[in-house]
Amino acid sequence: MLYKEAGVDIRKAADALSDIKNLIKKTLTSNVLTLPGHFGATYKIPEGYKSPVLVSSIDGVGTKILVAIDYGYYEGLGHDIVNHCVNDILVMGAKPMYVLDYFGAGKLEKGVIVDVVKGMSKACGENECSIIGGETAEMPDLYGDNIFDVAVQITGIVEQENIIDGSNIKSGDKVFGLPSSGFHTNGYSLIRAVVKEAGLSLNAYIESLNGVLGDLLLTPHKSYYKEISPFLKEIKGMCHITGGGFYGNIPRILPRGLTCHIDPGSFEVPELFKFIQEKGNIPDREMFSVFNMGIGMLVICEKDLGLGKLIGEIKEGDVPVEINGI
Amino acid sequence: MLYKEAGVDIRKAADALSDIKNLIKKTLTSNVLTLPGHFGATYKIPEGYKSPVLVSSIDGVGTKILVAIDYGYYEGLGHDIVNHCVNDILVMGAKPMYVLDYFGAGKLEKGVIVDVVKGMSKACGENECSIIGGETAEMPDLYGDNIFDVAVQITGIVEQENIIDGSNIKSGDKVFGLPSSGFHTNGYSLIRAVVKEAGLSLNAYIESLNGVLGDLLLTPHKSYYKEISPFLKEIKGMCHITGGGFYGNIPRILPRGLTCHIDPGSFEVPELFKFIQEKGNIPDREMFSVFNMGIGMLVICEKDLGLGKLIGEIKEGDVPVEINGI
Repeated sequence: MLYKEAGVDIRKAADALSDIKNLIKKTLTSNVLTLPGHFGATYKIPEGYKSPVLVSSIDGVGTKILVAIDYGYYEGLGHDIVNHCVNDILVMGAKPMYVLDYFGAGKLEKGVIVDVVKGMSKACGENECSIIGGETAEMPDLYGDNIFDVAVQITGIVEQENIIDGSNIKSGDKVFGLPSSGFHTNGYSLIRAVVKEAGLSLNAYIESLNGVLGDLLLTPHKSYYKEISPFLKEIKGMCHITGGGFYGNIPRILPRGLTCHIDPGSFEVPELFKFIQEKGNIPDREMFSVFNMGIGMLVICEKDLGLGKLIGEIKEGDVPVEINGI
Repeated sequence: MLYKEAGVDIRKAADALSDIKNLIKKTLTSNVLTLPGHFGATYKIPEGYKSPVLVSSIDGVGTKILVAIDYGYYEGLGHDIVNHCVNDILVMGAKPMYVLDYFGAGKLEKGVIVDVVKGMSKACGENECSIIGGETAEMPDLYGDNIFDVAVQITGIVEQENIIDGSNIKSGDKVFGLPSSGFHTNGYSLIRAVVKEAGLSLNAYIESLNGVLGDLLLTPHKSYYKEISPFLKEIKGMCHITGGGFYGNIPRILPRGLTCHIDPGSFEVPELFKFIQEKGNIPDREMFSVFNMGIGMLVICEKDLGLGKLIGEIKEGDVPVEINGI
């Protein structure tokens, strides 16, 4: 018996990797000391930091992958996963340096993985970030033939005294909301269940949404790095609204004894969210516990920095999150 | 409709995470500035480096996971994935600092994920490494109900002038082989196919191997960090024998124009490898292209450092790997 007969074709994997290497090379900076292919990927720590702290995060794109597979569009997933990770470390005040990706699949389809990495490469370019390594594993029986999962780990850097952890947030601080580009990468198991239950097709043009459902659901996760990074010194806390929505994420940055009051009347929930809520008959509270509701990032500070719109305020209180009327 | 009805139980996930946090806390050092739960995990770069370089790797355990699922033993997978990553950056001369893990599953089984993290936590302890963050995603339909995948990203550090990349390897250098603990984490799709084809049970006691097949196949990947790290300054190159075996991995560290000659008569191939080869009627060349054959790490240096046994030599030549008689 040969390895190939057991479902793993090393030659085919090597072929895909050569295309990927070219996409990766575009993202490399002079801090990256070795090309992909070594056992470990190298990154020289930038000079000029007094007390440099690495900030890392690892994440996947959840079952948004299954929507992408059903619809046959993959590049957006690369933007999704990089931008999600960039936002997670931005919240701590960090500047992105590099990512590594993990790609597991039942059968390696060169076109699919190359499209995902193409999206990652573009998103990395937009976020001043290098792709320095990764792992691609063909795992028959663990994943279905056309199924895959992708995870990305990001490493950024911040001066220790500039770490933003929310500990300086005080009663009276203002909460600003920055618009999301859609569902980002969370809540897709619920979205898929609603789409299925309602008998909707991803290829259907939805009049009220002025678009094709598959395109709308696969809009990539937005990065807030360029918009927010010039203002980091004036920001007390940020909250990336990901899995768990408002109720799950705000407590992660709020000191005890404070309540974040959100006024849902202060912003317009996008039609796409209303559409899924209506089709699925989803209660308001559940919507705010799962989705970003059109607000992908909260910025908490003393005064208006011109970032997003005022949607709430910090007050003393026992519960971390109060959304008026919800 | 509620998220829970769509197959995602956030409360159950939170319950597993609380157990995991306790296992993780055991591994934290004073370099880790924030506890798990923040959006980004922090690690303060150790002092005393002139020109510090980060060395990273990301990897999974391949279809060894399916053997673990069939056999119902998970803790070893945690050792596997950490030790695999530690070896990959050790090859570049790096000292481990921290890992982040990604865990994707169809249904989150608390016992399973806690066992995997228990193994990770122990392995991290043995390698002076912290678990600083991770992502756990319940993804119904993407993974089967009792199926999961786990990937780990490791970050280590090395002084720039001490990076080991094989470029100093010269004709006449010696190749020493360090014993593996078994198949480590590679070739399991082939192993599983052989086991299935031969009608073997993982629970069978194999007389000639003096053990139960499931136990033997799930022996954790060995870390070479403690054994090798005192000798890093005298080592010209290392090769972690992972996916691709001898033929796939040696070229990753060898300068062009050199051949690594391996004498397979200089070491005893463990009985477990012979057993799988015989049951699967696998050609010798395929064995050395897929498996570690009992040698998990090669160390290339000028003289005998007392690490492993002499199994080969570097000579001038056109092909990177020559295994006598294979």
